[in-house]
Order: sequence, then structure tokens, then C-alpha cells
Amino acid sequence: MTTHKFEHPLNEKTRIYLRVEALLNQLMHSAQFRDGIQHQLFFRSLFDLLEIFEQIQLKSELAKDIEKQRLNYRSWLNVDGVDQEMLLSLLEEIDEVHRNLMSAERFGQSLKEDRFLSTIRQRFNLPGGSCCFDLPALHYWLHIPIEKKTQDAHQWMETLRPLSDALQLWLKLTRETGHFKARLARLGFYQSDAEDANILRLSIPLEYGVYPMISGHKNRFAIKFIEFQSGQATGCDIEFDLAVCC
Amino acid sequence: MTTHKFEHPLNEKTRIYLRVEALLNQLMHSAQFRDGIQHQLFFRSLFDLLEIFEQIQLKSELAKDIEKQRLNYRSWLNVDGVDQEMLLSLLEEIDEVHRNLMSAERFGQSLKEDRFLSTIRQRFNLPGGSCCFDLPALHYWLHIPIEKKTQDAHQWMETLRPLSDALQLWLKLTRETGHFKARLARLGFYQSDAEDANILRLSIPLEYGVYPMISGHKNRFAIKFIEFQSGQATGCDIEFDLAVCC
Repeated sequence: MTTHKFEHPLNEKTRIYLRVEALLNQLMHSAQFRDGIQHQLFFRSLFDLLEIFEQIQLKSELAKDIEKQRLNYRSWLNVDGVDQEMLLSLLEEIDEVHRNLMSAERFGQSLKEDRFLSTIRQRFNLPGGSCCFDLPALHYWLHIPIEKKTQDAHQWMETLRPLSDALQLWLKLTRETGHFKARLARLGFYQSDAEDANILRLSIPLEYGVYPMISGHKNRFAIKFIEFQSGQATGCDIEFDLAVCC
Repeated sequence: MTTHKFEHPLNEKTRIYLRVEALLNQLMHSAQFRDGIQHQLFFRSLFDLLEIFEQIQLKSELAKDIEKQRLNYRSWLNVDGVDQEMLLSLLEEIDEVHRNLMSAERFGQSLKEDRFLSTIRQRFNLPGGSCCFDLPALHYWLHIPIEKKTQDAHQWMETLRPLSDALQLWLKLTRETGHFKARLARLGFYQSDAEDANILRLSIPLEYGVYPMISGHKNRFAIKFIEFQSGQATGCDIEFDLAVCC
């Protein structure tokens, strides 16, 4: 049975984390400049990230969250029945990621100072604004050899590695706290408690033809299933899998 | 010798035409949904087009311009030395494009009325705003079979065909009025007259490592060549090809 995976953040911070994760994935995926237009997505993702970095103190937020995870895992040290070798290796990984994060520049700092990037950033968001006459420097750059372009891209992305490593680790550990369980949304509606949870993960059979609209915050959440065709709430019972991740 | 092709519009209307052409090309190119992120470019191009349609009366502008070309080509009817068969076939093509343009809906009207598109349009421009939790309907749509997705895409694009055909014809005929001629920018600077021209086309050897900054309007224009590496105006003589298109 084909299912439709879905994630929903239960607080504003996690919302940003998931957005940044999606943008970093897009960046990596589009950095091959395989065709004449993929660069659009690359630069768009990069500039979207810079915009997010300007809006919030992502670095200190993430450092605090990694620190919380470290304390949590430390409390399992010397506890019977806990695989100590695995735990020590994880704690080492957390330490390293945290150290790199703390010694990193403010996210996006060197990207913001890059002359080429700042030249093209201003006009990139105009509708259709990446024509050659709007961005002659970009148009020139697109003509340089592919090796040089991917080298530039990797250099820009490398500056985001401390962020990327820390975010990936935090999200991985967070996602691992949840376990998928079968749930039933009677008449297309489901609600439950979720004390201090960060992410809901859903797996919904595609055959229902529905997608979820989720509301809620920290302690309580509600899921309403919407029919894709009509755009209206469904009246059917929906069986789906749900994982609540803290 | 590898060259770097470059086009510059000499008036605001042509600027819009070239942007719309670029967006239509992007739309076509990304409509194959080859990977998990190409849809981003597809919808971005589509919504950029809608934004342009809301800002200007593109249809009447384009109809007037096609009409001007028609009158111009008609004046060559029965003139000695002009290939009348070719001319008649061109005039027929112009007539058809003009007729389809005039009977078309306001550009983007049915796209704006499409429920699915308007649902996702609102949030699409948030930085990183195309995560599944921001756009659950889009996330569902991405899971439907590829045949259905390309079918939807072609249906949306089909509504833009009268625009696309008319714009392509106008730009083709405009570009054909210009012929590339060798030019020299002494100390990286070139200026000239261009009575009622619409588009400048340049072909610049890549080895100079420069891109053009062009200013000017209708009757007069100036080209300053900038070194990509330094971002400064070059002091070198630059040999390039230029076509002025009316």
C-alpha cells in the first residue's frame, strides 16, 4: 500500500528547523547544476536560508537544544540495560557537533559578505528577475566551466556545515523518540495529547485521497483530514499511523 | 572561441516580454517533474507569471505590438524583389496568432481561479515555505502518479498558449531585424544610437572575463564592460558582436 508521509512541527522553533532542513536538502540536490535552470533553485534556497538567518538567532537556539539532548543522554550513563558503548559514541558525536557549532561564524556571515552573492541576491526575488539583463554577473557565472561552478557551490555550502550537522543530528535524535502506531480518525477527525512534543509524523494510505490539516501546540493537537478533490473535510473514517516525537 | 550571449531590452515593455519569455521557458522545462524538487521551479515560474499579469495589461500591449508588425509586413506586399509567397505565409501566421490572442481570456484568469493553485500560491513565497506542513495539498499532489501531474501541468500551461505563441512570434520577428556586427569597446566602453530599437544582442568572447552593464533607452545606449573577478570596470579594449533589433 502506497502511503503519504507527513511531518508537522508542534512549535515555532521546530517549524523553522524543518524549513531549514528542507532548504539545505534543496541546496545539496540542486548544486549539480545539471541543466540550464537548476541554479535558480540553488540560489533561491541559499537566499531563503539567509533570510531565515536574519530573522532568528538560529545558532544559539540550536546550541541550546543540542545541549538539552546531551544532558538527556548523559543521564543514561551507567544505567543497567543501556548499551554503554553505543551511548558513549553518541555522546562523542553530540560533543563534536556542539563544539563545531559553537566555534562557527554567525550562520550565513561569509555568504552575506560574498561580493558575487550579494550582487545577485538583491534582484533574485523579482518575478522573473533572473534574466541576463537583470543579473549580468550571474549570467556570466553560468558560462564558466561546470567544475568551477560546483567548486563555488561547495565552498558556499561548506560554510553551512556546522549548522547542517547540528540540525541533522537534532532532528535524527528527535525523530527516533517517536514510534509509529496505528490510529483511527473517526469521521476524519483525530485529537490527542502530546506533552512537550516537537514533531508529529504521519503515514497515510494514498488511496483515501486525503491530506491532513493539523492544528495544535505542545500539549494538544488535532488532525482533520481533507479530501484533495473537493478541498472539504472528509466524513470517512481514516486509518493512519502516527508517531509523536519529543 | 566560446562566447557569452547577452540580450538587453531598451524599453520597459520589452523588459517584461523577455522576463515572461524566460518564465515560460522555465515552466516548460520544469514541467517534467523529473526529481523531487523540480516542481518548485514549475510553481514558482507559474506564480511569477501571475504576478506579472496582475501588474500590467500584457494582452493589449502585445496585441498592439503584433498589429504593428502586421502593418509593417503588409507594406511589403506587391513590392518588387520581396518573396511574396514567404510574406503571405508570414502574414497568415501573424493573423492567426493575433486572432487567438484577441479571443483568449485575460492572461492567467483560469489559473487564478484554480482552487488547487490558489491554495498553494499564498504560502509559496515564504522562505522555505513549501514544506509539507505549510502546503499539505501540494504535498499530496506530489504523491499522485507522474502522468496525472504532467497532465495537470499541461492543462495549466495550455491556458497560456495564446500568450506564448504571440510573444514568441513578436520576439522572433524583432530579433530577426538585427544583424550581428563586430564592434570595439575602447577601454571597455561603447556607446551608440539606436532609434526606436527594442533589443540589443551581444556576443562576447568568454576569455575577456567580462560581462556588460548596459544603460540607455530607445535612442541612445552605452555599454560598460565589468571584470567578473574584481567587479570593476575593465580598462581593456573589448571586441564583441552587436545586433540592434527594432
